Amino acid sequence: MNRRGVTIVLSFMIVLYSCGFRGKAPKAVQDRDPDTIFPRGDIIASGNFTGTAFLQMLVPADTVYNTQIGNVTFQPGARSHWHFHPGGQILLVTHGKGYYQEKGKPRLIIRSGDVIKCPPNVVHWHGASSDSSLTHIAISPNTPKGAVVWLQPVTDKEYYGGIRE
Amino acid sequence: MNRRGVTIVLSFMIVLYSCGFRGKAPKAVQDRDPDTIFPRGDIIASGNFTGTAFLQMLVPADTVYNTQIGNVTFQPGARSHWHFHPGGQILLVTHGKGYYQEKGKPRLIIRSGDVIKCPPNVVHWHGASSDSSLTHIAISPNTPKGAVVWLQPVTDKEYYGGIRE
Repeated sequence: MNRRGVTIVLSFMIVLYSCGFRGKAPKAVQDRDPDTIFPRGDIIASGNFTGTAFLQMLVPADTVYNTQIGNVTFQPGARSHWHFHPGGQILLVTHGKGYYQEKGKPRLIIRSGDVIKCPPNVVHWHGASSDSSLTHIAISPNTPKGAVVWLQPVTDKEYYGGIRE
Repeated sequence: MNRRGVTIVLSFMIVLYSCGFRGKAPKAVQDRDPDTIFPRGDIIASGNFTGTAFLQMLVPADTVYNTQIGNVTFQPGARSHWHFHPGGQILLVTHGKGYYQEKGKPRLIIRSGDVIKCPPNVVHWHGASSDSSLTHIAISPNTPKGAVVWLQPVTDKEYYGGIRE
């Protein structure tokens, strides 16, 4: 390599090195990455989900707060089975895009920042969209009434059969 | 400028241009900035806070979920008055750094990702640290028991008198 080549390569290396630092998101943003606010937890192996979903329990049910809180992450295409909550459930979507559907109603698109109320005993499912993961905090109040009753899987036809995007 | 100089400058410009894109946080990360997950809401003008705090109610209390959920943001130095929750409260810290203290116990430092249980009827306060804002989701279960009872302000001595950082 001639002298000019060496100079150019060195120039590239110096600038790339500098850019390496600029290329990272600022620390403050990294700290605030919602995927890292609460741990992703472990793969849910209960058999009540299609695809890969993760659960980190934040608050287990007890007789003081009567509330169970979990951080749930669905990989693209993953969704819960149909189910209902005797005490109801509130979803706070913190990342990504997904679906929420109550039996007999259209499938709704849900996104980061949405708050969804799942009324007591109303059969429904939720999960990620096919092209995005979804993370939500799931708050189950009134746990003495029962947290969840699981039903049948959401078929591909049901999953894809909702509102066209 | 000679030919070598032009080549080097062009090389720098091309690499810097490329780095310009790398230098920005990826869009996905920007979308996930917790400050924008839920709205900051309005300044709390109840007289039960010192400094500037904001509240966006996410779920108002009702007789179905028996739970009230709010997104609360404290500016640096801002804090609640002493208070207690007859039904207890759970705090999910989503951004920044702050303090939580129960009466008669040391002041604790709380950070993004922390989950804090405020037991029923235990007098306490929470707020931002002096050098950082704090955002948390406040979940008040058992609302038929009463959401909150407000007491006296947290003095500067109390605010600064906790554990040294």
